[in-house]
Amino acid sequence: MRRKKKERQALLQETLEKDPFMTDEALAHFFDVSIQTIRLDRMELSIPELRERIKDVAKQQLDDVKALSPDEVIGEIVDLQLDERAISILDIQSEQVFTRSGIARGHHLFAQANSLAVAIINDEMALTAKATIRFSRQVKSGERVIAKATVKRIEVERTIVEVQSFVEQEVVFSGEFLMYRTKQMKNG
Amino acid sequence: MRRKKKERQALLQETLEKDPFMTDEALAHFFDVSIQTIRLDRMELSIPELRERIKDVAKQQLDDVKALSPDEVIGEIVDLQLDERAISILDIQSEQVFTRSGIARGHHLFAQANSLAVAIINDEMALTAKATIRFSRQVKSGERVIAKATVKRIEVERTIVEVQSFVEQEVVFSGEFLMYRTKQMKNG
Repeated sequence: MRRKKKERQALLQETLEKDPFMTDEALAHFFDVSIQTIRLDRMELSIPELRERIKDVAKQQLDDVKALSPDEVIGEIVDLQLDERAISILDIQSEQVFTRSGIARGHHLFAQANSLAVAIINDEMALTAKATIRFSRQVKSGERVIAKATVKRIEVERTIVEVQSFVEQEVVFSGEFLMYRTKQMKNG
Repeated sequence: MRRKKKERQALLQETLEKDPFMTDEALAHFFDVSIQTIRLDRMELSIPELRERIKDVAKQQLDDVKALSPDEVIGEIVDLQLDERAISILDIQSEQVFTRSGIARGHHLFAQANSLAVAIINDEMALTAKATIRFSRQVKSGERVIAKATVKRIEVERTIVEVQSFVEQEVVFSGEFLMYRTKQMKNG
């Protein structure tokens, strides 16, 4: 249902407060207007674009990565609270997809999630011991994958991290990572 | 126990017939002699070096990869019998390890195993739906990882592939991959 501009803008503001990760495309679809209209609405309301929004939301809690060098993280970390939660963004490039199908290769989504599971650990050393992962929908070149990691459980020498990766609002990848810290070392 | 040269060479030949994947290092350790001795033994017996041996063993059954482009396989495929078994070799380079620990990053081992699980499928299209993986020992720069994939089960639209990766005789990675073929498409 189309709404009047004022009503739409109020609702837009409210929607983005609830879910700052919604893209312009998703908003256009939701409000049944063009992407251009959403952009104009955002400009009038002084709402920055998605990447900036995510950074704004996250900025208060961007801890320093401890378990690996920041440039070893696959994707861009925009939110990090050690031993609690982390978010990273990965824009799928044309060289990361199968030439034949144009579908993103699984190991890039895995690399984003796995390196986020390492980054979230509040320890100088963290290595992956085990993972159970699921690819739930294809990702194409040009799509933006937002991975959200959450620490589920901290045990004596290990941490269980859950990662869900989204394109728009859809889950494209999910995984549970069993991470070893400090003395117990496996591949990370 | 040290053996006489003749005895050792006879046993060396026998050992390599049973396990052509044994490295010179492992053989030297096994026979309690230097690597140089093993190399001389091999030369006298006209036994080629590991990589060539693997290729020799495999050559009879090197099917063409169907589900992806050959250059999209991570590692070098040396044995492939579609829908049955496959072997690939990956030499870990210094840029594939964590700078801090020198330990190979998990996603490279995952990429080798996952792309082998795609390559083994006898179909134009194969994508990974789910995987359960385990990193059982660290891999360092310069080590050679040999991944062996076996098709465990073929169902209507999916294939279950088991992969075990070794350095020397030791398992460093193992995984079970649930692959979709043709019409059912997930990320691969």
